[in-house]
Amino acid sequence: MPESNRLLEAYQQTKYQLPGHGKRNIQVLKDAFADVDGNLDSDIYGKGEVIQRFEDKMAAYLGKESAVFFPSGTMAQQIGLRIWCDAKGSRKVAYHPLCHLEIHEQDGLKRLHHIDPILLAAPDRLIELEDVLQMPDDLACLLIELPQREIGGQLPDFQTLVSISEFCRNKGIKVHLDGARLFEVLPYYQKTAAEVCALFDSVYVSFYKGIGGIAGAILAGDKTFTEEAVVWKRRHGGDLISLYPYIISADHYFDQRISKMGQYYEEAKELAILFNRCEGVHTLPTVPVSNMFHVHFDHAKGQVEQVLAGLYEETGIGVTGSLRELDSDKCYFELSIGDLYEKVPKEELHRAFEVLAERFATLRQA
Amino acid sequence: MPESNRLLEAYQQTKYQLPGHGKRNIQVLKDAFADVDGNLDSDIYGKGEVIQRFEDKMAAYLGKESAVFFPSGTMAQQIGLRIWCDAKGSRKVAYHPLCHLEIHEQDGLKRLHHIDPILLAAPDRLIELEDVLQMPDDLACLLIELPQREIGGQLPDFQTLVSISEFCRNKGIKVHLDGARLFEVLPYYQKTAAEVCALFDSVYVSFYKGIGGIAGAILAGDKTFTEEAVVWKRRHGGDLISLYPYIISADHYFDQRISKMGQYYEEAKELAILFNRCEGVHTLPTVPVSNMFHVHFDHAKGQVEQVLAGLYEETGIGVTGSLRELDSDKCYFELSIGDLYEKVPKEELHRAFEVLAERFATLRQA
Repeated sequence: MPESNRLLEAYQQTKYQLPGHGKRNIQVLKDAFADVDGNLDSDIYGKGEVIQRFEDKMAAYLGKESAVFFPSGTMAQQIGLRIWCDAKGSRKVAYHPLCHLEIHEQDGLKRLHHIDPILLAAPDRLIELEDVLQMPDDLACLLIELPQREIGGQLPDFQTLVSISEFCRNKGIKVHLDGARLFEVLPYYQKTAAEVCALFDSVYVSFYKGIGGIAGAILAGDKTFTEEAVVWKRRHGGDLISLYPYIISADHYFDQRISKMGQYYEEAKELAILFNRCEGVHTLPTVPVSNMFHVHFDHAKGQVEQVLAGLYEETGIGVTGSLRELDSDKCYFELSIGDLYEKVPKEELHRAFEVLAERFATLRQA
Repeated sequence: MPESNRLLEAYQQTKYQLPGHGKRNIQVLKDAFADVDGNLDSDIYGKGEVIQRFEDKMAAYLGKESAVFFPSGTMAQQIGLRIWCDAKGSRKVAYHPLCHLEIHEQDGLKRLHHIDPILLAAPDRLIELEDVLQMPDDLACLLIELPQREIGGQLPDFQTLVSISEFCRNKGIKVHLDGARLFEVLPYYQKTAAEVCALFDSVYVSFYKGIGGIAGAILAGDKTFTEEAVVWKRRHGGDLISLYPYIISADHYFDQRISKMGQYYEEAKELAILFNRCEGVHTLPTVPVSNMFHVHFDHAKGQVEQVLAGLYEETGIGVTGSLRELDSDKCYFELSIGDLYEKVPKEELHRAFEVLAERFATLRQA
């Protein structure tokens, strides 16, 4: 059996897991619908109480005039950028080289919307004000992702965001927020969602990351913006006759977890310290700024898989089900804190990290 | 109160309704999931047992090599046509003037894919072989909708389909089936789905028309075709992390209703006879060829609303909740038979149509 399969199998058999809210299974839907009256009418092509109420609730929470529910963030964000491009008569947007639209969407933005992205900053660091100052004036929109997921969920300081926003607005460049994990960074910024979103002309948020829903996204902004977004939603094939399976579950888990983001953040910081105590292991960022971080190993993937699988089998505590190779002697994984972390007995957690530290110390000497 | 509101309200209060399967409410989802084990894993971005099993089942049912589940038919069909266009290096497709892509999708095909449709046939009749013979050779794809919904769900005879398919294949033109209501026409053709689909290179079917699911569609064809479709699904924002709310309900209601299509068809023919007995009322087609037909009135919309609302209040039998105006003295509505029709006591049904015939006779004399 390859080590990667052994790692996943050992992980699946652990009693406790550090990341996540639990399994993505059908029970997630059943729990969300358990107390919903069967007589409640479906939304119908974007209309009806179920969808309107949730869109209004999210618009208010994000401090925007209007909000539209989408089946996916991929669809919502391409559409947001397209609207800003059409408004300016430009095909240029700017974003980070590891932006979701650049690396995870099969070039939908380019192939469907013929939009040319300019990549700002180096892949391994955040977009800073200096990068923004060099953008061309005919740019339609700058996309900022908070936190920058692919580099461990790093964040610029709030004043940098304010400066970027001011600069763009003076230049007539729209600013769009990829807030896939926006809820998760509010405890770090010590701001409300509306205070962060006020710096942006349009905002996307997701309901299956920290919130733990089934799928779905909100795109918010001015009424004129969302009215256009609804038309594009139809064009993309996202204006489903019924989106309520995602809406009702998003609403359910939003209410259940939005107040826990501070707890997840504190737990992430606590857990990162434990990882950083192991030799040849470090977290990115060193001190997390949300519920997520990356764990990097100065060892080959196969070696780390062996160490971790052994840990799971010995302690019953699972850390990750898979690793990504960086080069022949480096690998990493992403970890997001959810409801499961608080269920791990602290004593067993610390014992597991003692074992882990020993193993990596041994690996170092070998 | 406007007559149209009165009609809808009276309809909603009827004891029996002739069309449909029942209310589109949350109970539809609850029923589909009642017997599903909560431990069943979600599909993840198009992978996993839940989605694979249903895609395989539908590929086999449609007689195609491979099938892909989509959140919507709008997305599935645009993508199907795009793939055939790219394969031929052409931007031309042909379809009926009242094709869903032409009138219900905010020009997504044109705005996202830059595809130029050629409109075949007049809006009020089916595409015939003669129309197809005149198509240009550089056409990438011909789309045929079975049944042609916007003209009452009419169908070409099967031999015409065979001839159209043969002609296109000889010319190197792909043939795509808009089978939103394919299941519903199989009893008329007395063919299996696979026998019909064999005439087409790609096929779309829907799960919330006759099947009565929540939403969702299948796009089927050769493996090379569906592999491309999966990439485009990601680009469109349709490759959701979890599509199981639609997949499981589609599967549930497919199993429940696929064998009832013959019954719906017979009931539609029976019901059309009753409408056609009323003066100034006729169905299109006169003899239905599926579970659906249109009911046309040679009277102003307001007058018919008054007659129908009166009928509902007097007999407790609802026929439609809304009418569409054709011109100042003509209107119509669409009717699709589902599970509700069999619940209407025959005696009450015939009494209602006696009342209706009387009312229209009176209206004629006035």
